[in-house]
Amino acid sequence: MTSFHSSLETYRRDIGNALDAAFPATGAPESRVVEAARYSLLGGGKRIRPVLLLASGGMFGLSPDALVPYACALEMIHTYSLIHDDLPCMDDDDLRRGQPTCHCQYGEATAILAGDSLLNRAFELLFENCTISDSGVVLPLRIRAASRMAQAAGIHGMIGGQALDLRYEQEPADEKALERLHRMKTGALIEASLLVPADLADAAPPTLAALFRYSAAIGLAFQIRDDLLDATASTETLGKTAGKDANAGKSTYVTRFGLARAQDLLSNAISEARDAISDLSMAGYVTGFFQDMTAYLLERKS
Amino acid sequence: MTSFHSSLETYRRDIGNALDAAFPATGAPESRVVEAARYSLLGGGKRIRPVLLLASGGMFGLSPDALVPYACALEMIHTYSLIHDDLPCMDDDDLRRGQPTCHCQYGEATAILAGDSLLNRAFELLFENCTISDSGVVLPLRIRAASRMAQAAGIHGMIGGQALDLRYEQEPADEKALERLHRMKTGALIEASLLVPADLADAAPPTLAALFRYSAAIGLAFQIRDDLLDATASTETLGKTAGKDANAGKSTYVTRFGLARAQDLLSNAISEARDAISDLSMAGYVTGFFQDMTAYLLERKS
Repeated sequence: MTSFHSSLETYRRDIGNALDAAFPATGAPESRVVEAARYSLLGGGKRIRPVLLLASGGMFGLSPDALVPYACALEMIHTYSLIHDDLPCMDDDDLRRGQPTCHCQYGEATAILAGDSLLNRAFELLFENCTISDSGVVLPLRIRAASRMAQAAGIHGMIGGQALDLRYEQEPADEKALERLHRMKTGALIEASLLVPADLADAAPPTLAALFRYSAAIGLAFQIRDDLLDATASTETLGKTAGKDANAGKSTYVTRFGLARAQDLLSNAISEARDAISDLSMAGYVTGFFQDMTAYLLERKS
Repeated sequence: MTSFHSSLETYRRDIGNALDAAFPATGAPESRVVEAARYSLLGGGKRIRPVLLLASGGMFGLSPDALVPYACALEMIHTYSLIHDDLPCMDDDDLRRGQPTCHCQYGEATAILAGDSLLNRAFELLFENCTISDSGVVLPLRIRAASRMAQAAGIHGMIGGQALDLRYEQEPADEKALERLHRMKTGALIEASLLVPADLADAAPPTLAALFRYSAAIGLAFQIRDDLLDATASTETLGKTAGKDANAGKSTYVTRFGLARAQDLLSNAISEARDAISDLSMAGYVTGFFQDMTAYLLERKS
């Protein structure tokens, strides 16, 4: 196992343990919603967003204690969005991370509340983290970072992207509209993964700009790769229903531009990501993990 | 118009204007979700929670500027919970505040995202409020108050209550279980309405205790009154479907204990609320508004 894969595994294990502790099981009568939330939160997943957050924070020399609440909040927000996205009235998906989706397992009402409880818990965590007297980061920076995450999750970020997704099921999207959709739907949280630690570290504007450039590029690469996998991989490999977007008549990079052009766009995005990493390296940051992560995101099979 | 009703109208107008500004309309392609959120947020409602919050804050001499973000966040959280509660897989309600429910007007998918966006926006507002350099309240108290609100909305508060509501559709609830359900489902946000300003004012423990006692009493009174109205008033008067809980076989104070005993429990709760107000008066606070508000909650017809 390379040092990159070993770091990735360590990050993932730490995140899994922290999530387990941050949304604990309960014996109370309301436990079914808790169980459903934990089912989706702890049932696997690549943890790409919190891994990026921990790696970005590590680059700034921040302690895990300062980062973990943000990493957990981010993964809770991502998980709630998947639960609500999979609902019958939304994408109507039966399979997620190789398991039955939350509503298939627990019913729609419980799944909606499980999603709500994860979003709410994410913000509880962030506020609790601001009541701690010393996390190694001064309070205004902790708030700046939390405020960025809240914005990224909202109507001008992820939720706005989901709203666009609904819209472009009804009418075709051009390349610009499709890019805006993905920049909001998946890009906003990926951007937050990288920039939240920069806020905590009070990083200089050129560093923020390089991270922003990197996040936009890998966000795009990530989405195109998803669309390519949806079009070419099997359900078994993906752990979610393959060919779904195309069958639903959704605009994706593949349905809109074809496989070859989508591959080209992916290569361009990867080059852009590598350029952004060079900017960070030249500013003196250690970027080995991000170089490997970029390759990993390009090569992933699910 | 009495001075109480005039204060109530002023509070409501201020809240309506602040909510309109805090969740503005947009011409962006994702506007349909924004429109749906605004439809539910601005389409009437009694504004009981934000009114209580502003009145409690006024009692502590806090400025409206310090209170309005919390009042807006609270009403957004309340509104999102109604939107999700009304969904076909939850209470399946067609009518709310005298209008078609959000999902009847905009479809289920848009309604779910509208709810999500309101919950998210509530926390964005609270974080933004913590980035303002001076709101007349020191930062740690602003965070303490926001943290309380987040807790009240979550799995140990309102969402937990909704989870119990689902559970007790499947199995009967005894008096204690029913009380816990309502203390979480409606009580938690009412408690936050009164205690958030106490946090902002750094109120003394006996004052917090009196407000807690008052909130528990009016929360209970409010719920019993709701159950009585559901059982006795018309759909037209209520602005929502009457007789729904009883028809759905839900445990309510009326279905569980009968009209007469429910009336007795309501009277007890009102006495308890009045006693709590006396405690506040004796501590030197001006409580006229709360005295009138208690009577108002008892007499309301919808």
